[in-house]
Amino acid sequence: MKIIDGGVCAAKGFKAGAIRCGIRKSQTKKDLAMILSDCECSAAAVYTTNRVKAAPILLTMDNLSNGKARAVIVNSGNANACAPFGIENARREAMAAARALHVAMEDVVVASTGVIGQTLSVECIEEHAGSMEMKYGNSMAAAEAIMTTDTKVKTIAVEFEADGKTCHIGGICKGSGMIHPNMGTMLSFITTDCAISSEMLDKALKADVKKTFNRVTVDGDTSTNDMCCILANGMAGNLPVEQEGPDYDAFCAALHMVTEDLARKIAADGEGASKLMTCTVSGALDEDTAEQLCKSICSSSLVKAAIFGSDANWGRVLCAMGYSGAAFNTEEVTVEFASKAGTVTVCEKGRGLDFNEELAKEILDQEEVEINVTLQEGSGNVTCWGCDLTYDYVKINGDYRT
Amino acid sequence: MKIIDGGVCAAKGFKAGAIRCGIRKSQTKKDLAMILSDCECSAAAVYTTNRVKAAPILLTMDNLSNGKARAVIVNSGNANACAPFGIENARREAMAAARALHVAMEDVVVASTGVIGQTLSVECIEEHAGSMEMKYGNSMAAAEAIMTTDTKVKTIAVEFEADGKTCHIGGICKGSGMIHPNMGTMLSFITTDCAISSEMLDKALKADVKKTFNRVTVDGDTSTNDMCCILANGMAGNLPVEQEGPDYDAFCAALHMVTEDLARKIAADGEGASKLMTCTVSGALDEDTAEQLCKSICSSSLVKAAIFGSDANWGRVLCAMGYSGAAFNTEEVTVEFASKAGTVTVCEKGRGLDFNEELAKEILDQEEVEINVTLQEGSGNVTCWGCDLTYDYVKINGDYRT
Repeated sequence: MKIIDGGVCAAKGFKAGAIRCGIRKSQTKKDLAMILSDCECSAAAVYTTNRVKAAPILLTMDNLSNGKARAVIVNSGNANACAPFGIENARREAMAAARALHVAMEDVVVASTGVIGQTLSVECIEEHAGSMEMKYGNSMAAAEAIMTTDTKVKTIAVEFEADGKTCHIGGICKGSGMIHPNMGTMLSFITTDCAISSEMLDKALKADVKKTFNRVTVDGDTSTNDMCCILANGMAGNLPVEQEGPDYDAFCAALHMVTEDLARKIAADGEGASKLMTCTVSGALDEDTAEQLCKSICSSSLVKAAIFGSDANWGRVLCAMGYSGAAFNTEEVTVEFASKAGTVTVCEKGRGLDFNEELAKEILDQEEVEINVTLQEGSGNVTCWGCDLTYDYVKINGDYRT
Repeated sequence: MKIIDGGVCAAKGFKAGAIRCGIRKSQTKKDLAMILSDCECSAAAVYTTNRVKAAPILLTMDNLSNGKARAVIVNSGNANACAPFGIENARREAMAAARALHVAMEDVVVASTGVIGQTLSVECIEEHAGSMEMKYGNSMAAAEAIMTTDTKVKTIAVEFEADGKTCHIGGICKGSGMIHPNMGTMLSFITTDCAISSEMLDKALKADVKKTFNRVTVDGDTSTNDMCCILANGMAGNLPVEQEGPDYDAFCAALHMVTEDLARKIAADGEGASKLMTCTVSGALDEDTAEQLCKSICSSSLVKAAIFGSDANWGRVLCAMGYSGAAFNTEEVTVEFASKAGTVTVCEKGRGLDFNEELAKEILDQEEVEINVTLQEGSGNVTCWGCDLTYDYVKINGDYRT
């Protein structure tokens, strides 16, 4: 398995395109993207768990119910959630893609991201979708078009083998605010030329997202529009993966490499973030317990603010574990902070240690910092990703709409 | 019932004192307070639900197990949580108060607030407690000494009647960060001269805290040290309240007036807060549902940042309701923003309305703003209090320890 270029166009037979159609006020930022497979794909998706689901989510759930799709259309600038004419406009958006790409409307995945509650200017989409140029190797344009408050393009692809054939899998995603582990928490589109049945694709995606995208938190807000969708067109020519076995395992490993990379990129680019925070809880009673503890630490505003200030305030880590609702022995907690500048243990057996404050500050001053918590109760090990809480988070979100 | 001065010394027979004993580095800020009743009191308390409980919490739970107490000692500057010699030092702090005030160690309530994980300098307390001057009418000094990042003293007292006798109840509290509804979420000390049994006092306090202190959120972090404690010395001379009835109701009403006022003051003085945010959910299926929705809105970083920016971004309100886990019909949600500058309805039946953005901005520019959500499903009505998320929250918490 190796990392390659190409993002969502790394797999054979996938084209992408992007355009500025006018949903956003910006005169330069692209706001509409499409992805197209040369042939029909097995397709699977995971959606937001928010009770308030945007119209495009509802339409896509319906379109993917047969496990098949061929194209994706995504707009940024408007979420089409709680908006007048929501379903009607999501359908018109799908129709616009279907007409432009000569595919069936039922084979289109629709996704939207942006402000909630305002009517989507679907006319712009209808007017411009037809003139979008779809090209192989054009992933970057699509990755840029789906960004909102993201500051960095998020893309990755890998090459792997299944059934002796070289396969490719790649993805793009966006996500910066309203990020919290509970599905998707962002938009992510993944394509692969590996031949795999809808059922196995669905199984692989659901299992994987639990350990990757659902372990990212930026601000504890689970959006109305989150979706992670994967299309597999089979053009690698491998014997289709239809059951568990070495090929399925190879596929899952490649998928995991893609999704974990994208998840980390989302956390690192969290709104206003200056640091990627990776938190690992080891030795918890079981995986669920470890996850509950890990997410609570990553979500704590106080922990996040301490990381921003490079303050080794481990008491907040214990405090966040304490209110997580998870069971653990408070007398058996070890906490260390680590980064490329070194490692410092600050708490052992639930009690503070005398530690080198200067070293701790230097460790936390790096762009990627780790909080490692060790318990003595079992084999539950989980890693979650988050970011620090900064002035810029407040700035970005104090005036997002206007 | 009327509001009076005097805080924790408004009730007959209660003295208070405060001193700077040296726990904090500050050369001026007082860091130790005591409260003393002239005679033994019925006593009750509610504690943090955090699994990590500070040593003074554990000691106080033990001391109050007989429903009796006479004195309170509180230090700021150090939480004595996850700290070496925790229980031993909490006990020494109680002993210092017992010696200074000539009461039994088992009749002392001990509370601490401040940094987690560092050894409490209990020697300072032992050295200075004896020289603290305890005076009637000295509530303000105690209220100041228990403050940490609080910017305002929080105190209230009311006069009421029970059994034809004039009774008084008053309180002080501190709380600014690590504030989230799950008990206490702060330190609060309430005194009354009303005669009431420990059992009824406990019942009244537990019921009341659910609707007041537990409905305040600042940052979603439930502290290790939270406590709300009440002492009733019976010096008003009323026939002791030992069962439900008019006197109990009068007591509960007065208690509620005190605690709701203190709860609002905590929210308004949330770390870095520039605005008090009052959120009311009406017409939910039942009270639990209303509370779940209301707390989710008040806790959302995105809602809080929007309020800071005076941005009528009601989509975030719906989004927070959606991920709260509570059941509600998304097609029946009405949202309005209100303040002394007026009222604007921004969402009806789950869909955005065209509204006057300028008016909305003016409404949200006030120091006290309301988010009112109306559903059509039942009679669950709940109000919660919170505050906006500001640059100053990040500043305060990015470098609290150092």
